[in-house]
Amino acid sequence: MSTPATDRVELKRGTNRAEYGHEEMLAVLDAGKVAHMGADTDHGIIVLPMAYGRTDTEILLHGSAANAMLRAGGGTDVCVTVTIIDGLVIARSAFHNSMNYRSVVIRGEARLITEPEEKTEALKIITDHVAVNWDSRREATEKELKATMVIGVPLTEMSAKIRNDGAVDDDADLGGPEWAGHIPLTEVWGEPVPNDDVADGCVLPPETLAGVTQ
Amino acid sequence: MSTPATDRVELKRGTNRAEYGHEEMLAVLDAGKVAHMGADTDHGIIVLPMAYGRTDTEILLHGSAANAMLRAGGGTDVCVTVTIIDGLVIARSAFHNSMNYRSVVIRGEARLITEPEEKTEALKIITDHVAVNWDSRREATEKELKATMVIGVPLTEMSAKIRNDGAVDDDADLGGPEWAGHIPLTEVWGEPVPNDDVADGCVLPPETLAGVTQ
Repeated sequence: MSTPATDRVELKRGTNRAEYGHEEMLAVLDAGKVAHMGADTDHGIIVLPMAYGRTDTEILLHGSAANAMLRAGGGTDVCVTVTIIDGLVIARSAFHNSMNYRSVVIRGEARLITEPEEKTEALKIITDHVAVNWDSRREATEKELKATMVIGVPLTEMSAKIRNDGAVDDDADLGGPEWAGHIPLTEVWGEPVPNDDVADGCVLPPETLAGVTQ
Repeated sequence: MSTPATDRVELKRGTNRAEYGHEEMLAVLDAGKVAHMGADTDHGIIVLPMAYGRTDTEILLHGSAANAMLRAGGGTDVCVTVTIIDGLVIARSAFHNSMNYRSVVIRGEARLITEPEEKTEALKIITDHVAVNWDSRREATEKELKATMVIGVPLTEMSAKIRNDGAVDDDADLGGPEWAGHIPLTEVWGEPVPNDDVADGCVLPPETLAGVTQ
């Protein structure tokens, strides 16, 4: 059985929902859409939603080079959390209400990725995370690359918590008059909506559509 | 036009997407399902997904009384962020790719809510946030209330960012060969799944179903 890399990513409660298997944790990262990154800035802690991607060893995040949080994050301790909500759990007691979810928490030191080739590859990975489209876009300009900051956080201090179950009530409550169970929640992509200014015949390539169709 | 309460919740980029109207920000909180709260602990910053609810003046969050983050949050500066992803935006240049989303960032000092009546009311609000069900569950025990920690963070230092648009490309790229537009993403509730151990005739009340049906 897998074990947590460090004490600070070891689950202290709900330990039966803990998942420390590397492949299982990567699967959650692959299924998520945004990460919430927390960093300490000159004016306190901030948590912001960010697009992301991953290699086998790092989660990659990007933003404006003017982003105070990203600047604060470079070389300092951050926490990056990815959560997918899979449903609502309603138990006989509100105390045992919960959600079904998959979440990954990554703690560690963020590094700025500045080497041009590595940075471009990181941007491609982030761009292609939800739907592969980097190669079908026009090439990035030097100015755009300069305006973008990219950081990586090692996938080392990482743990996941996965709940995928019905209600778990106290034995004394079983047989009570309350309904208990779960209500699944899924995300559904709609039809792509082209801009009015898109020229006739422009289409999304199949590899992009594969990421955004059911 | 509404203005940010403090400099540290004023949007510095994407200012055309900023929303400081109180009602508009509350509407985002009402539509969200989980918050990501960041706090500083003895072992660094942590960001965790949490169920929440709100009054007109505070966002309310709860967790185990053994929760190090909640304990750390009481009386200290925290950041609570709620994000809803509404779609993927694909531009002609990956640089202008984005998501459509609604997010609210709340910064401020968390207070522990310990007075029994206020704490019970806060738990009811959190429980009823997604689907109203507090009153149809069996009553909370004193032991359960003791095992639960509740905090409130003022809805004062708060700002929202809302993007709901197609691709916004550079003028020079208009008319290019790339598809540009957005792909909507919505959440869909499935049919409620009762536990095997639910007695015949137990049903979810209409006020609960109203929150978890399309």
